[in-house]
Amino acid sequence: MSDVESSGRRGPYAKTVQTRRTILDAALEVFAQSGYRSGSLRNVAERVGMSEAGLLHHFPSKSALLAAVLEHRDDHSTEMFNFFESTGRERLTNLVGLAAYNATIPGVVELFTNLAAESTAADHPAHEYFKDRYHRTTALVTDSLEDLQSRGELLPGVDPKSAAQRAIALWDGLQIQWLLDRDSLDMAEQLKAYFDSLMTEPL
Amino acid sequence: MSDVESSGRRGPYAKTVQTRRTILDAALEVFAQSGYRSGSLRNVAERVGMSEAGLLHHFPSKSALLAAVLEHRDDHSTEMFNFFESTGRERLTNLVGLAAYNATIPGVVELFTNLAAESTAADHPAHEYFKDRYHRTTALVTDSLEDLQSRGELLPGVDPKSAAQRAIALWDGLQIQWLLDRDSLDMAEQLKAYFDSLMTEPL
Repeated sequence: MSDVESSGRRGPYAKTVQTRRTILDAALEVFAQSGYRSGSLRNVAERVGMSEAGLLHHFPSKSALLAAVLEHRDDHSTEMFNFFESTGRERLTNLVGLAAYNATIPGVVELFTNLAAESTAADHPAHEYFKDRYHRTTALVTDSLEDLQSRGELLPGVDPKSAAQRAIALWDGLQIQWLLDRDSLDMAEQLKAYFDSLMTEPL
Repeated sequence: MSDVESSGRRGPYAKTVQTRRTILDAALEVFAQSGYRSGSLRNVAERVGMSEAGLLHHFPSKSALLAAVLEHRDDHSTEMFNFFESTGRERLTNLVGLAAYNATIPGVVELFTNLAAESTAADHPAHEYFKDRYHRTTALVTDSLEDLQSRGELLPGVDPKSAAQRAIALWDGLQIQWLLDRDSLDMAEQLKAYFDSLMTEPL
């Protein structure tokens, strides 16, 4: 507290950022553990030692909190797997790595799977977020496949954008099957098999 | 009514079957139109000119009604596309046809997408239904790919079961992207592109 108070105008802002981050980490844990429907704002507030009213000061609604958790989670994935500073081949390898990592956090996978499905309703609070997210992730994979293509490493006849949409779709569907039955398949291995089927040399 | 009454013991049973079918058709329409969350038992009951208590006599809960709607829907698809009496190649062509047909009934696709995601929770009333459904559909596609393989029409290195799991996963994920943005992709075309990528000759 004293740090914050002594640092003038930037202090309270920095504290707000830190508080939001603490809340988002707690919310992710709560939603991942209890599911997004059962996970309550009160649980999240309790976990960070705050009142529900205090929490609502930072996030005006459960859906606003959810949206922020999703973006927070995306930032985390991006940091961990560095999708930008590498070749297309490296980026796809990183995506397969992310699929393997996701298998260690089933609650988060469950959260995303349920929200993606729910958000297909036009009036859902995360509708625009997911629409935008699919465009972004498709662009990321398209770009990676185009890089492979420019190096002559993509099989003839493969259209990068269409293959990218299939890759993202495949990943979503693998998550459903895996959540229903963890022993049914290996998400990362299946995603890799798909990418390999597009390329002259496997990942 | 008189037919039913005059036909003795089979009569009331036949009437029950017919009533259940009428309810299921109405429930599918209600859930497809209003979504499965907002669609209420009362809406369904009203549509078939029945009280809610009368409806509950046939289906003890909303989740039981949902499960029955899902099975009813599967039966309908199976009848329409005849997945059994044909070669593997014909069966896969029929699946692509089903994907094209689904694009005409977005409410049903939304219902399935949401329920599949929700049902990943072990305590969801449709959990076992979906687990079993994935096993069945995977087996159906595996069998079709094995038939192609036995005719030398599958590319070397393609494992039928693993490719079948990817096909089903792809389909689920395509539905999500399509529901979020109908112009983003053609589900049938994308599914066909995937099957074609496994085969020596396109479908």
